[in-house]
Amino acid sequence: MRTLRTEALTAAAFAPFGQVLQSPFQGDPNMNQGTAMRLDRAAALTNSRGTTCAPNLAMVRSLPQSLPLKLRLLERHPCSSQAFIPLRCARYLVVVAPSTLDGQPDWGGLRAFVAGPGLGINYAVGTWHHPFVALDQPAELALLVWEDGTARDCEEVQLPSEVTVEEA
Amino acid sequence: MRTLRTEALTAAAFAPFGQVLQSPFQGDPNMNQGTAMRLDRAAALTNSRGTTCAPNLAMVRSLPQSLPLKLRLLERHPCSSQAFIPLRCARYLVVVAPSTLDGQPDWGGLRAFVAGPGLGINYAVGTWHHPFVALDQPAELALLVWEDGTARDCEEVQLPSEVTVEEA
Repeated sequence: MRTLRTEALTAAAFAPFGQVLQSPFQGDPNMNQGTAMRLDRAAALTNSRGTTCAPNLAMVRSLPQSLPLKLRLLERHPCSSQAFIPLRCARYLVVVAPSTLDGQPDWGGLRAFVAGPGLGINYAVGTWHHPFVALDQPAELALLVWEDGTARDCEEVQLPSEVTVEEA
Repeated sequence: MRTLRTEALTAAAFAPFGQVLQSPFQGDPNMNQGTAMRLDRAAALTNSRGTTCAPNLAMVRSLPQSLPLKLRLLERHPCSSQAFIPLRCARYLVVVAPSTLDGQPDWGGLRAFVAGPGLGINYAVGTWHHPFVALDQPAELALLVWEDGTARDCEEVQLPSEVTVEEA
């Protein structure tokens, strides 16, 4: 039994696992006749299976869970990045792990980030992560991933021992 | 001088122009161990230029404008769908027009929909629309479009006569 303490989601801390998606605060309005600021290619979108594999923009409603939370499994999408873009949410959990040299989760490197309204994330292709966990309230989100319906869409690994996420 | 009254955004009313993106309310939780409901392929994502044209997930901050609003121009993306997914917003305007047989905006068919939190939209490929207009408060949104930096990314047409959008 191991306890993982939550940490705040920042772009720097999350960089090994993907990108934090946030609208730009700074800079001159550079589009729409001076009414908007745009940051292009904010997510490293990846699809290694070519045009036979279509992008899937799915809409998800996720029911809230409570901390402390016992983790269940990690999953990864070996051929696709995966973006989560919340339209409505309170806080949500982003649990990730680095990969070992043989491509399995490095359990010692597990991290539990807490994100919230105004923040999305994009998992880099092949990044091990826990299924989405809404906290406090139901979350409504868009999800962007390239899928073709085969087993290569998603790989899952059960946790080898009990890990519980607790508030920092 | 012509006045366009706003109307509420519904999937049925918007269907000729694209898809309304909303998390599913109904149904059994079908993913993430019973904690989430997922509606796959909620948007008709289109890229007619193949793999030389990459998807661009951009993050945008849009400053609010007021009604009544004088429309400036319409634009379309002849080779790509375009999705707008707000992470934070109050109300926002979705102004669209059908196309004539020769591909120009059918000005007589202009519509002005009002959307809000929890609702995204995906413009069908080639749909004439006004640049994004946030109302009431700044909006933070993700934008998904396929672009390659050429003139085919976006076409613009000025309005031939003055049209003002007013509250219904």
